[in-house]
Amino acid sequence: MTQTLSLVPARIDTYRQPVVYMAEDCHICRAEGFAAQTRVRIDLGERWIVATLNVVATGGWLKVDQAALSVSAWSALGARPGDRGRFSHPEPAASATRIRAKAYGERLAGRDFAVVVRDTLDNRLSEIELAAFLTACTGDRLDEVETEALTRAMLDAGDRLDWEGRRVLDKHCVGGLPGNRTTPIVVAIVAAAGELIPKTSSRAITSPAGTADTMEVMAPVDLDAAALRKVVEAVGGCVVWGGALNLSPADDHFIRIERPLDLDSTGQLVASVLSKKAAVGSSHVLIDMPVGPTAKVRSRSAADALGARLLAVGRRMGLDVTLHISDGAGPVGRGIGPALEAADVLAVLRRQADAPMDLRSRALDLAGGLLDIASGVHGKGRARAAALLDSGAAEAKFMMICAAQGGFREPEAAPARHEIIAPRAGMLETIDNRIIARIAKLAGAPRQKCAGIRLDSRLGDRVEAGQPLYTIHAATRGELAYARAYAEAHPEVMPIREVTP
Amino acid sequence: MTQTLSLVPARIDTYRQPVVYMAEDCHICRAEGFAAQTRVRIDLGERWIVATLNVVATGGWLKVDQAALSVSAWSALGARPGDRGRFSHPEPAASATRIRAKAYGERLAGRDFAVVVRDTLDNRLSEIELAAFLTACTGDRLDEVETEALTRAMLDAGDRLDWEGRRVLDKHCVGGLPGNRTTPIVVAIVAAAGELIPKTSSRAITSPAGTADTMEVMAPVDLDAAALRKVVEAVGGCVVWGGALNLSPADDHFIRIERPLDLDSTGQLVASVLSKKAAVGSSHVLIDMPVGPTAKVRSRSAADALGARLLAVGRRMGLDVTLHISDGAGPVGRGIGPALEAADVLAVLRRQADAPMDLRSRALDLAGGLLDIASGVHGKGRARAAALLDSGAAEAKFMMICAAQGGFREPEAAPARHEIIAPRAGMLETIDNRIIARIAKLAGAPRQKCAGIRLDSRLGDRVEAGQPLYTIHAATRGELAYARAYAEAHPEVMPIREVTP
Repeated sequence: MTQTLSLVPARIDTYRQPVVYMAEDCHICRAEGFAAQTRVRIDLGERWIVATLNVVATGGWLKVDQAALSVSAWSALGARPGDRGRFSHPEPAASATRIRAKAYGERLAGRDFAVVVRDTLDNRLSEIELAAFLTACTGDRLDEVETEALTRAMLDAGDRLDWEGRRVLDKHCVGGLPGNRTTPIVVAIVAAAGELIPKTSSRAITSPAGTADTMEVMAPVDLDAAALRKVVEAVGGCVVWGGALNLSPADDHFIRIERPLDLDSTGQLVASVLSKKAAVGSSHVLIDMPVGPTAKVRSRSAADALGARLLAVGRRMGLDVTLHISDGAGPVGRGIGPALEAADVLAVLRRQADAPMDLRSRALDLAGGLLDIASGVHGKGRARAAALLDSGAAEAKFMMICAAQGGFREPEAAPARHEIIAPRAGMLETIDNRIIARIAKLAGAPRQKCAGIRLDSRLGDRVEAGQPLYTIHAATRGELAYARAYAEAHPEVMPIREVTP
Repeated sequence: MTQTLSLVPARIDTYRQPVVYMAEDCHICRAEGFAAQTRVRIDLGERWIVATLNVVATGGWLKVDQAALSVSAWSALGARPGDRGRFSHPEPAASATRIRAKAYGERLAGRDFAVVVRDTLDNRLSEIELAAFLTACTGDRLDEVETEALTRAMLDAGDRLDWEGRRVLDKHCVGGLPGNRTTPIVVAIVAAAGELIPKTSSRAITSPAGTADTMEVMAPVDLDAAALRKVVEAVGGCVVWGGALNLSPADDHFIRIERPLDLDSTGQLVASVLSKKAAVGSSHVLIDMPVGPTAKVRSRSAADALGARLLAVGRRMGLDVTLHISDGAGPVGRGIGPALEAADVLAVLRRQADAPMDLRSRALDLAGGLLDIASGVHGKGRARAAALLDSGAAEAKFMMICAAQGGFREPEAAPARHEIIAPRAGMLETIDNRIIARIAKLAGAPRQKCAGIRLDSRLGDRVEAGQPLYTIHAATRGELAYARAYAEAHPEVMPIREVTP
């Protein structure tokens, strides 16, 4: 039932989706009944992948006895020119029936999630099957028991760091506030206090920048587990991209689909956060949850529901979880986008006069909370955190962390910029987090590191007509023009309330 | 904001998903920030499409000032070699926020569905966005008002046939019974009775054959609206593929995603059926609903719920809907798969001695039901239907229909076959519709017309050890081997109950 073809690199980048190109008159297509979009199993030695078939017309660039592989398929199979792959029909993915059941509203058990996670990691699920799974889990469609089961399935599918019983602190922010980039500051303060804080972060899911995107502007973040351990043993803390490690590796597959769909699921979110925390070996986790009308968590009751789920599943997983509810009314700091947020982080660590005070204050709240957890004494942590920041100890620690991760670099400025000005005088009373994030994304963030928004006016400011409200930063003129067009069509992002003199 | 590239055919078949190939060092990719999997808008004159970008490495088969289009993208754009396309970022699909809202469980209004349908037809939604929409509508997640709204949105997006107030009969079977191919027989009988029955059918969604797949074995089914009208005015009836017409055209886009996901939604199903019936101009619709433990409708209560929705939405749409509940215990006829089912249809119409009596009886029930509706007198239709079949009038009418559609042809037999034999003696008491359909699909049905299953034993038969239960038919040896392996691993498809002598 298996037949072979010579493998060649197609040198076509299809991002993470593995694609195989076969000739229209290829004998295997005929014998096996393969047609465009058929999912095909390709074996090479011990490795195998399932790829989507695209069919190349006779007389094209592909020989009839060759199969060409997309960049991701070539690398996943570890192929070298001249290798012969064996082609066959994949067995039906065992998880497909579980995904269907969930779509119909049934509850899934631990073994169901384990099968979905395994098939996801083996690339046995198509993009639309993954989209169906994630849509079926949207909102509150996973209950507490299912959430624990998904968390364990995601944890068990990857590696796990072991810190030999030492106290390991961690923080996480449930996103939604553009520019809220406290992590590098918090890690620097907590590590400067002598605590262990091996922080892994994600790239953006639906936001203009994830912590990993921002940190990457200042230092390499693609460290493997051995490199991470070396950094943390040397300097006490790190801020690395979790995706370069094999910690809860299914999460990145889910993110690839969730990102364009812009969907959130309480269960998926809790499983994503806690499986990563458990995998990195954390013992104590502080979770920051900004609440505001346009934040990810929009109301106190939503925060309570999500918080209760995080605490409950954390307890089931043996993690000491502490919640911190913060104000999510508007963006934090001045910058939105990887390099612009990195500039804010550095301004705070360097105690610059123009450093955003709201970012500083939030970072001190969280670092203080972690130091309270570490000491077991409530209320003294914040002052200690402030002292470590003000003394320059945190800045020095941050530079040590960057050096240990591969070397510090300054953020670069964007070549293309456009100021959006106030159409009239008045009070700036709200900023729509979702629209401002959308403009930053249209400008190219997080793909383009320098792209995003810099706020020139802040909440509560009285502005004059013609005064700049914010500046769009972009790497290319096309992206700048596109973001600008969208911004000009959405003045409600920063409404100006006229005030009678 | 728009820039142009020379368009060339990539001659790569990606099925319906439009793909554009651009060179890694193309100036537009750099200027616009396009990367692999970015969705790109391409304008050519008045036409435009949104395609998924795949990036070809420098020095590959693509020149830096060219963009190559997949077969479906090339054809959708109506491009000719030498044309220059304009490239830009597509505006965000307006329907994306509606899809998200539905995934979170919100109710959608008529304008929301209209936007989803329009964006679907304009190819502005990615496959994963369509998968999210369909998953969010799975099961009973659309209520009656939403179902009507979706039905009208699908209807309004296409053409509508007008029969000038004449009585137009139609039938539909809610699938799930392999081999239940009554339509060609019913249409032949009803048209032979002098009624108007312009039947459009779909290709298989999750089954081994749709009526259009089966009919296509015997006559062309890809007729446009003008050709359909000509056939029906000449001979009273037709059996054509609805997808070649522009009647409720979004349905095929939904089917392309539903098929691999194997998901059903009550609302989606009702909207699919009734929008097509309204578009074809039907006034009276008889809906057959087979109920059985492994049929699509598994219980009388599920049939009642689906039936109530069909009646309610039909009433709102001004359609006279009649329900017919039938036995869905097992497959109908002997054949499962396009050509094998066509052979059954012809055996009944030709009154062959080996014609499957269950298929004949079901076709007479439905034709009789339609003749009752037409005459307004209940109970006399079935005898009249039997007379039209037995006299050969229905066979003659069927041949006229095939000739009018483009010419009759006999079904062809499959080159590769394998008999599955009874492992022991006993009674054959159940056949699992889902597993038998799965085996037929693995054998290549409906893609391969000749592929499928022929039942050698029937429900209620007493079989001896070694006696054939069914034969797998396939177009290729690879598909035969694959279906056979699956069949041998699933003997529960036809369990034999041992009987004490």
